Amino acid sequence: MTPTATSSTWTLSPDRCFDPDPTQRSLARELYASISGLPLICPHGHVDPLLLADPDTRFPSPADLFIVPDHYVFRMLFSQGVQMEDLGITTRDGRPVERDGRAVWRRFAEHFALFAGTPTGLWLKAELIELFGVRERPGRDTTDRLYDQIEARLRERDFTPRALFKRFNIEVFSTTDAATDDLEPHSRLRAEGWTAVRPTLRPDGVTNLATPGWRSNLDRLSQVSGISVVDYASFIRALEQRRQTFKDLGAFATDHAALSPRAEKLARSEADAIVARALRGTSEPDDAERFTAHMLHEQARMAAEDGLVMQLHVGSYRNHNPAVFDRFGPDMGADIPLTTEWTRNLQPLLAEFGSDPRFRLILFCLDESTFSREMAPLAGHYPAVFLGPPWWFYDSVSGMERYLEAVVETAGVYNLAGFNDDTRAFASIAARHDVWRRVVSNWLAGKVARGLLDEDDGFTLAHQLAYDCPKRAYRWP
Amino acid sequence: MTPTATSSTWTLSPDRCFDPDPTQRSLARELYASISGLPLICPHGHVDPLLLADPDTRFPSPADLFIVPDHYVFRMLFSQGVQMEDLGITTRDGRPVERDGRAVWRRFAEHFALFAGTPTGLWLKAELIELFGVRERPGRDTTDRLYDQIEARLRERDFTPRALFKRFNIEVFSTTDAATDDLEPHSRLRAEGWTAVRPTLRPDGVTNLATPGWRSNLDRLSQVSGISVVDYASFIRALEQRRQTFKDLGAFATDHAALSPRAEKLARSEADAIVARALRGTSEPDDAERFTAHMLHEQARMAAEDGLVMQLHVGSYRNHNPAVFDRFGPDMGADIPLTTEWTRNLQPLLAEFGSDPRFRLILFCLDESTFSREMAPLAGHYPAVFLGPPWWFYDSVSGMERYLEAVVETAGVYNLAGFNDDTRAFASIAARHDVWRRVVSNWLAGKVARGLLDEDDGFTLAHQLAYDCPKRAYRWP
Amino acid sequence: MTPTATSSTWTLSPDRCFDPDPTQRSLARELYASISGLPLICPHGHVDPLLLADPDTRFPSPADLFIVPDHYVFRMLFSQGVQMEDLGITTRDGRPVERDGRAVWRRFAEHFALFAGTPTGLWLKAELIELFGVRERPGRDTTDRLYDQIEARLRERDFTPRALFKRFNIEVFSTTDAATDDLEPHSRLRAEGWTAVRPTLRPDGVTNLATPGWRSNLDRLSQVSGISVVDYASFIRALEQRRQTFKDLGAFATDHAALSPRAEKLARSEADAIVARALRGTSEPDDAERFTAHMLHEQARMAAEDGLVMQLHVGSYRNHNPAVFDRFGPDMGADIPLTTEWTRNLQPLLAEFGSDPRFRLILFCLDESTFSREMAPLAGHYPAVFLGPPWWFYDSVSGMERYLEAVVETAGVYNLAGFNDDTRAFASIAARHDVWRRVVSNWLAGKVARGLLDEDDGFTLAHQLAYDCPKRAYRWP
Repeated sequence: MTPTATSSTWTLSPDRCFDPDPTQRSLARELYASISGLPLICPHGHVDPLLLADPDTRFPSPADLFIVPDHYVFRMLFSQGVQMEDLGITTRDGRPVERDGRAVWRRFAEHFALFAGTPTGLWLKAELIELFGVRERPGRDTTDRLYDQIEARLRERDFTPRALFKRFNIEVFSTTDAATDDLEPHSRLRAEGWTAVRPTLRPDGVTNLATPGWRSNLDRLSQVSGISVVDYASFIRALEQRRQTFKDLGAFATDHAALSPRAEKLARSEADAIVARALRGTSEPDDAERFTAHMLHEQARMAAEDGLVMQLHVGSYRNHNPAVFDRFGPDMGADIPLTTEWTRNLQPLLAEFGSDPRFRLILFCLDESTFSREMAPLAGHYPAVFLGPPWWFYDSVSGMERYLEAVVETAGVYNLAGFNDDTRAFASIAARHDVWRRVVSNWLAGKVARGLLDEDDGFTLAHQLAYDCPKRAYRWP
Repeated sequence: MTPTATSSTWTLSPDRCFDPDPTQRSLARELYASISGLPLICPHGHVDPLLLADPDTRFPSPADLFIVPDHYVFRMLFSQGVQMEDLGITTRDGRPVERDGRAVWRRFAEHFALFAGTPTGLWLKAELIELFGVRERPGRDTTDRLYDQIEARLRERDFTPRALFKRFNIEVFSTTDAATDDLEPHSRLRAEGWTAVRPTLRPDGVTNLATPGWRSNLDRLSQVSGISVVDYASFIRALEQRRQTFKDLGAFATDHAALSPRAEKLARSEADAIVARALRGTSEPDDAERFTAHMLHEQARMAAEDGLVMQLHVGSYRNHNPAVFDRFGPDMGADIPLTTEWTRNLQPLLAEFGSDPRFRLILFCLDESTFSREMAPLAGHYPAVFLGPPWWFYDSVSGMERYLEAVVETAGVYNLAGFNDDTRAFASIAARHDVWRRVVSNWLAGKVARGLLDEDDGFTLAHQLAYDCPKRAYRWP
Repeated sequence: MTPTATSSTWTLSPDRCFDPDPTQRSLARELYASISGLPLICPHGHVDPLLLADPDTRFPSPADLFIVPDHYVFRMLFSQGVQMEDLGITTRDGRPVERDGRAVWRRFAEHFALFAGTPTGLWLKAELIELFGVRERPGRDTTDRLYDQIEARLRERDFTPRALFKRFNIEVFSTTDAATDDLEPHSRLRAEGWTAVRPTLRPDGVTNLATPGWRSNLDRLSQVSGISVVDYASFIRALEQRRQTFKDLGAFATDHAALSPRAEKLARSEADAIVARALRGTSEPDDAERFTAHMLHEQARMAAEDGLVMQLHVGSYRNHNPAVFDRFGPDMGADIPLTTEWTRNLQPLLAEFGSDPRFRLILFCLDESTFSREMAPLAGHYPAVFLGPPWWFYDSVSGMERYLEAVVETAGVYNLAGFNDDTRAFASIAARHDVWRRVVSNWLAGKVARGLLDEDDGFTLAHQLAYDCPKRAYRWP
């Protein structure tokens, strides 16, 4: 190894993510070989269903595939002084931004070194090499060649979203859809027989009274549900109607975001009053927070009744940088984690539904310190509770390893929900699952090599974590 | 390694817990060999002294040995939908539960895979193979054979609690006993010359005003102490009397549990008033919390005076699941950790007693994030403060490794209290100490292999962590 | 390896800090070889500039070099019962303490085992062996021989502070100086052409109204600035004047300490009133806390305007042990960390200045749980934010490794500020940087060996972390 001998061709190690110790590496290879070909279970993500609903959809330019939709990518460039306008990110007020995909790609390529050691760097490398056959690292010298090469690929028939969906060997694939969504792309897919693509109901836009545009979201809810929402009772009926519609279109889960997991049932009169105030536009200061807590509890009740799995994502301070939010809107890489407290906050909900065999709750947060302290003990006791995979910033090699170390000793493997790719970047789906499968294989190999796990258990748990756990947790048949 | 070649006989790796790297493993073996035969120091646990007080005591069935008393085991089965009634857990209202040990064992055996990768799985495997000579993994196929084999062993003379006590090579062994306990089994043991078994005073049932049954506990305290508790002053006298009685029976420590380590001395008039209200049954909302904080401070004063070592276990939200508590009572695997704050909470107590050479305080909590942030800095400064071993959910291979990594760089090894098995499961005692000794050996081997520790220091610290540290911390002669 | 074969000569492994795996170790050696000779960048520390200002300065005795000025050393001895008076620590009231350096050294040597496994132990060993040619471990038997040997060296010309400065190959070196300091030693150094030594402005003594002696600090501020501080406006002008004076003497940064990073601009009238109250000696209870938060915001404004880099160190509960503080004063090893919350606290400041290319903010705290949860996400978004190295208790092999694992995946390497030695112990500077460079090399080697980093990227990032990052973060030309 010398600093100058390497840059000729850019290659991907077949042993990436594996420990260098020969014993562990050899076991990791065998475990990985046993699961690398399994179909992908994708129960949570943010890909637009329109990509798949129309068979003729093509990915636009390399910039639009790799950079513009991926806040993991452009927030890193922004942190080192690259302006988001220069990366082609659309402004809210229509102020002009860079429209030349080749120029956007060049700025990305010139800063590619920033991604060294990050999961984004790992996924990009796998996508470029494995999917697009790239053999040179992005950089000043290679920028146009790579752009041309990728652009050419994107024009091929094998690179439509649907072709990649098949190539990725996806068995089930959930999108995330507002409670007010008409699910037209899902209806089209279903009509066509594409039953592997499923909607997931995300009701925050109507259950969080502080959502910008809540009032118009509510009008839209009345419209799509056919139930005129005029008070708390009709609001609940409309939500239940939407849950049923999602379920009829194949949904097996809902998804809920909140700053904290506080769940607490309000007296019916209080819930009535809060909704009445909100409809009149006279909400009081803590109405939104209390109603969110109430609705988590109420939706757990609905979940116990209709069997939709409840996902709970907590602890993201959204739009932390107002300059970025004002110019570009939400989901622009300016969301910063908060501490999370599960034990006290979730107690009232779990006291009522945590031992109910009809109920299932999958937890996600951005506060690693809760993994071993609160999440694993909760999952290791309550029949209803499963742990979601390491989320967002922790969807990384070290993040996954810390997660497995922190939760398995207390919760075991069977209380975990396996992996979610959780991505907006369609082309990265296979790469993300591959990292999880490699990390799981290597982690289990380490346990076997240390005599902490029987060899056959290693294979069983690898299969569980790659395939069975998400199917069981999400009640996929 | 192939998935099918392994299940013939079930074996325990002699190198379990050791890193696969040959250099580290070889050093780990040597370090472990130097300490594996040392007597066990067991200064904290929850074994019933009656087990040892009567020489004819036998362990009942395999189910009663491995499953019914061990909430680590049955809470994992519960988390995956097994009903606790079906595991023979006694209900509070006498509702019937499974009484057939063989049927309970079968349910456990069929779910044995749940324990893969957990410390419970590791201990069970060591106990079954090393203690009971089992050669097959528990499972559907082997359930009756193993049950018969273990049951036969339990009828042998070598498997009484006293025989195992000797076989485990226990040098000192503390139980945990309520302040209101008459210590009859301890008196009997002492009379018989069994001085290795010592009581530990746990006063929470009388110092925590919110304890269910506090009033009758207080009556019992009057009775056993011979001091009629009618006010704060007599309460303190009665407690001091009990401390002396425990000390006379060989106790060298007390144990205190609290939600938080807040310790703050109240004015005498306030303490008087709080106890008066409690005795009248008219406690005010925060009386219990304030009195607990006061009593921590007051008992530190007593500890400085009488030399009993003070253990402080904080941060367990007890009986989180009311359905389980109502049906089965406390200690049923439904206790969930809380965050802990030591720095501000403990400051008043440490300001007064932390530099007092007569005082000794051993800290335990369930919030790993405090290991490096607060606990190690406190132990690395205050002469009175020692750190207890990783507690409960962290009494595991990875838990111990994270603990050692987090605390030793700041506190060194000599400010640690070594290991506690802290178990209710008598048969697991040797297995738990063995895991600690293996993890310590492997961890030190890694430091020596990386040139961070001199070789002879490795041996010295291994001996310290396995044997000297608990004796020094608990003032065992 | 046997416990008796080692103690003949005391040696330092050339591979210390490196993993025992041969692949990783070999890569680590190569990476380390590529950076071990780079000049040291020392942008933050607590060495007294007088040590360098006078060319004739000599280090006094071995005790005064290794023990008396280093609270890392004496707090560990104190934690195991050694009295600070017996270690020669000066009392505030002039009560006599041990003045015999040889006796102090003996107490240290007899307790040298306490440092096994600690970073202090690692630095001391490197200093004794590499700098002083020691070949025996400190201990009861060797105490006088080592004392004589070190004392003899300290009399040599090659062991003056200036000689060591050159031997350590220091390129730039910052001290930390009160806003009220006249910077006379810095003026002398500058006059002499020693431009590598730079002052850093630390204004806490005047911005924190609760500082003991605040009023006299303010008088001193009036005096050194030539601006009579009579109200908020003149206070701000005086501070700005000092910033300019520091800048003129080569400062490139300021340093700010606070319990929490709360930063919030007060209305001008409130700031006026708070300062007026403070000057009258009639501060209200939360004036100090609110003014500290305001001044963090205000000094960010100044930093954006004058370009001085803002360092923020938060979360140390100073002088936790009043007995030690009363007898010996501050900085006596009795400072205990607190939890830190960055996301909400820093939001107002970052909303205003976080995207301003003129502003630069380097964050430090003692709460590891924030590394991945808050600090890395902030640095991975805001152009102004850089992460300082692992601070104080985390300036250790494992502390550095956990830091790199926690932050790089989210923030990358280019948002880090590299290393600070942050020391009061001049002789340890090279040893501390060497540990960082070794840990970085080993950590990167692990990533390369696992196929997570291209080989040439490993060399690039090693150079960044050892040399380029601090220069870029601190705007050193």
